[in-house]
Amino acid sequence: MDFQTMMQTRRSCRAYLDKSVSREDLMKIVEAGRLTPSACNSQPWHFIVVDSPEGKEKMCDALLLENGRTGCPWRSQVPAFIALCEVEANVIPFVKEYYGTKQRFAPGDVGAACMNMCHQAMELGLDTCILGVTWQQKMREYFGIPEDAQVRMVIAVGYADPAAPVQNKVRKPLEEVCGFNRW
Amino acid sequence: MDFQTMMQTRRSCRAYLDKSVSREDLMKIVEAGRLTPSACNSQPWHFIVVDSPEGKEKMCDALLLENGRTGCPWRSQVPAFIALCEVEANVIPFVKEYYGTKQRFAPGDVGAACMNMCHQAMELGLDTCILGVTWQQKMREYFGIPEDAQVRMVIAVGYADPAAPVQNKVRKPLEEVCGFNRW
Repeated sequence: MDFQTMMQTRRSCRAYLDKSVSREDLMKIVEAGRLTPSACNSQPWHFIVVDSPEGKEKMCDALLLENGRTGCPWRSQVPAFIALCEVEANVIPFVKEYYGTKQRFAPGDVGAACMNMCHQAMELGLDTCILGVTWQQKMREYFGIPEDAQVRMVIAVGYADPAAPVQNKVRKPLEEVCGFNRW
Repeated sequence: MDFQTMMQTRRSCRAYLDKSVSREDLMKIVEAGRLTPSACNSQPWHFIVVDSPEGKEKMCDALLLENGRTGCPWRSQVPAFIALCEVEANVIPFVKEYYGTKQRFAPGDVGAACMNMCHQAMELGLDTCILGVTWQQKMREYFGIPEDAQVRMVIAVGYADPAAPVQNKVRKPLEEVCGFNRW
């Protein structure tokens, strides 16, 4: 599948078959994250592959928030998760000093890695959903995440249930989000 | 080219041929940005395609920072630029309230859009470099960017000079950035 078609057809998947994902495929997905470009090649990320029964149980618990809500009511069906943590980019002091900027590039870099991992999964015939909200403190405790790192998102990975309805892709019209030589 | 090969071979390009990029190709690149998934489908972005001589002159000026430094000394060679602005995500108040989180997802979403645009360019035979630092105030003035938006990055787009040396892709080893069911 060419990239343009991937962009047009990729959907978030919220209904998974009861079929496990191989470690080989999970590692290919992580590899796409690892190879992602980042500001000054800082690579401000750490990936946690969660595929054991105990790990998944903990992940399902950490996807239920302190206020009892969740972005992922179907989480117990998911065959594997990959948590993306943002780590302090070593490049930041240099960039700040040299360019005189306070900009933080790491959140965008982690977003790029996440996108690449979803596309790599798609190429392997897998489906994904990006989950943004987690109970950070539980994630830290359950998975040994250090204090200077932060879970930015979790990718659910598995095989879509073909019986589930496919959502339409709804986007703002081009004219609303794009200008030429001007906003 | 399959996605895995794209990930392995994509490089930042810092030497461009004197060859313009068609509007058709630039629009396909913007389309990949527009179709990018985002937190609660908030689409917190605006793209500015810069391909006119006047626009490029302004962009080159805004890529020179207040302190006289630049991440892009070769900017005058670049046939086209696309600025990615982050706009306030309408979804944020809802997300904050419902999930009880202060997390901001927009920077990661814009990073994902940027990555997709670079891959779409690659599929069209184009090369890119992601530029992080700009003189924000000049960007605002030159391109009419509103106060509640922020330029997150600029993508340089063109055809790589085949005579330029290809950089090796240097990344942290997998063991350093990945754990299983644990950090």
